Amino acid sequence: MADDRPLFIPVILGTPRKGRMSEHAAELMCREIAKRPGVVTELIDVATLPIPVDDAGEAAKDAVFSENMNRADALVIVAPEYNHGYPGLLKHVLDTNLKEYIHKAVGIVGVSAGAFGGARVIQNLIPVLRELGLVTIFWDVNFTTVQSRFDESGELLDESFLLRIEKFLDELCWMAETLRHGRAHVTIGGSE
Amino acid sequence: MADDRPLFIPVILGTPRKGRMSEHAAELMCREIAKRPGVVTELIDVATLPIPVDDAGEAAKDAVFSENMNRADALVIVAPEYNHGYPGLLKHVLDTNLKEYIHKAVGIVGVSAGAFGGARVIQNLIPVLRELGLVTIFWDVNFTTVQSRFDESGELLDESFLLRIEKFLDELCWMAETLRHGRAHVTIGGSE
Amino acid sequence: MADDRPLFIPVILGTPRKGRMSEHAAELMCREIAKRPGVVTELIDVATLPIPVDDAGEAAKDAVFSENMNRADALVIVAPEYNHGYPGLLKHVLDTNLKEYIHKAVGIVGVSAGAFGGARVIQNLIPVLRELGLVTIFWDVNFTTVQSRFDESGELLDESFLLRIEKFLDELCWMAETLRHGRAHVTIGGSE
Amino acid sequence: MADDRPLFIPVILGTPRKGRMSEHAAELMCREIAKRPGVVTELIDVATLPIPVDDAGEAAKDAVFSENMNRADALVIVAPEYNHGYPGLLKHVLDTNLKEYIHKAVGIVGVSAGAFGGARVIQNLIPVLRELGLVTIFWDVNFTTVQSRFDESGELLDESFLLRIEKFLDELCWMAETLRHGRAHVTIGGSE
Repeated sequence: MADDRPLFIPVILGTPRKGRMSEHAAELMCREIAKRPGVVTELIDVATLPIPVDDAGEAAKDAVFSENMNRADALVIVAPEYNHGYPGLLKHVLDTNLKEYIHKAVGIVGVSAGAFGGARVIQNLIPVLRELGLVTIFWDVNFTTVQSRFDESGELLDESFLLRIEKFLDELCWMAETLRHGRAHVTIGGSE
Repeated sequence: MADDRPLFIPVILGTPRKGRMSEHAAELMCREIAKRPGVVTELIDVATLPIPVDDAGEAAKDAVFSENMNRADALVIVAPEYNHGYPGLLKHVLDTNLKEYIHKAVGIVGVSAGAFGGARVIQNLIPVLRELGLVTIFWDVNFTTVQSRFDESGELLDESFLLRIEKFLDELCWMAETLRHGRAHVTIGGSE
Repeated sequence: MADDRPLFIPVILGTPRKGRMSEHAAELMCREIAKRPGVVTELIDVATLPIPVDDAGEAAKDAVFSENMNRADALVIVAPEYNHGYPGLLKHVLDTNLKEYIHKAVGIVGVSAGAFGGARVIQNLIPVLRELGLVTIFWDVNFTTVQSRFDESGELLDESFLLRIEKFLDELCWMAETLRHGRAHVTIGGSE
Repeated sequence: MADDRPLFIPVILGTPRKGRMSEHAAELMCREIAKRPGVVTELIDVATLPIPVDDAGEAAKDAVFSENMNRADALVIVAPEYNHGYPGLLKHVLDTNLKEYIHKAVGIVGVSAGAFGGARVIQNLIPVLRELGLVTIFWDVNFTTVQSRFDESGELLDESFLLRIEKFLDELCWMAETLRHGRAHVTIGGSE
């Protein structure tokens, strides 16, 4: 029996860097998610989250962010690549929650000014997301040379990305739906 | 509607090294899986697989191994840690298949003579398994100082591992069941 | 011809978390470094660095931290493991510099409450440190179950760690000395 | 005082796959290395090494390969990306030696049919090479869409790669020279 509530798939914009191009990528992802029937989204911007820098982990939890993670069926993480790793503030925010993520799906959108579209930040994030209990899908979106992909108003200049995003969201929604069914109907330590 | 066929969860013994202790670990995992109602298993030993060394990838596919991957709902990979990475022959074998793995669950049993129980081979394997389409669960089994964990006949000396294995298999079976439902009932690019 | 200036090897304490045990580990590392003839150190605490959260990368550079990285011949990074990854604020700070790190040595001290002593945060940091131009030595220090390793005043309870730290610092000083010679005397794109 | 012997920098061709394009890349690397004054090279092809598949680690050591690793000042590893990881047989061969690698330099040439040029196999190899005692330089060569980069005789079609290879080899030779000096003149656990 299918669950009729819409899937909630927020998009986390993973950097507050001034001049960030990831903002255009995150907004595009939101627009594409919002077009899907039965899916709702929201942009969560680490630049506007209250981020304490005098603590870390669950003690630094923000109630609104936490409630969003709790409600989410899946996440899209838009992650620029900084020195082949993830932005520190993205990790700082992700670390504030734990059980909220368990058995939910996540897809990663890598962003870089160079030719590899964040391929390396994705590799760096995967083992962390696993430990958080998230399931990382095996499709990514890679915004290579991101500075050339959007006009000043944030419109996508290269439509070929839309096909990639469509396949990525197909897979993410499949995993989100599948895991939602599992969370509701499959017993841990028992049979369905 | 639940699928009544038993879950098939083979155990891959990931090294042919002479004197390997991983064999005891793999046999233990098989015994523990076989105790579960509704689950069947089989030991797949890379030491007895036909392994061509003059090719790689799908061209080097073995029909029996491939059929086992095709039938599997989940895998247990028993991986000793060699220089913080995975055994080469394990990877060589895994690379021979591709679509056979998609949307199936996998759990990793790390094995080492040292104190960290293969924690690092697990990190090294995770991004590879993701690319194969497998979902790595977020519980592991870590056989630390493996040479002290079994007697000569392969009996487990430290019963505390059984509790860990139980939780690991609970999670693996949950993910296997959940993904099997998804494969059968959730449409990619559509709704359930 | 040897360089007679002392090696400068600051210790970066990589988390501001309240109740952090890594502080004891970092102070111990400073004390052990300071005992070495020809080596000077300094504790750099991310909790007391000015950390802007509205920007990232070189634009968020702190002059004092930067000068320390510039002067350093090697770094010790004390990194607790958060969800198998590095603390976000540690990465945020590391990302503020770039050319300051090139061709210098780094050693990682992993810290965890669990049994694996930060083995996984070390794996997660290695590719990032490489991209920064640092050379990560192949010895680590792993503070497993860190809460049991120090008394309340920060005294080390288990002396066996001192031997491990000694080997770690031997290797770090070797690499620091070697790379300092290279920076001074080996021409890039030419011969010595 | 400089060491006057030439640097020995063999190139390891990391796959025996039939139809491999990495062979052209490896031969190109050899030709470019051989042009450098004071550097000699040799192609080491995993397809022609005796590779036992009934054992692993130092027990499976080949004397000729081992002697080459012993003599080497640095390595170039040409690694195609298989499922975001390294070729199994490359790892199987690397694992047969250990102390032969210590304090030597290595540079990685990633190869892929896709757009990211083996960026992910490089990330996957880095922690393994560190554990082997090798120092991975922070420049890579990435053969993206490798099938379009060479003609049938193995001639490079896109000359822009030569500039990248030059910088890569400049850095590799710098590190090789620097570490050779360290091995000869810097005492571990002492001062220069």
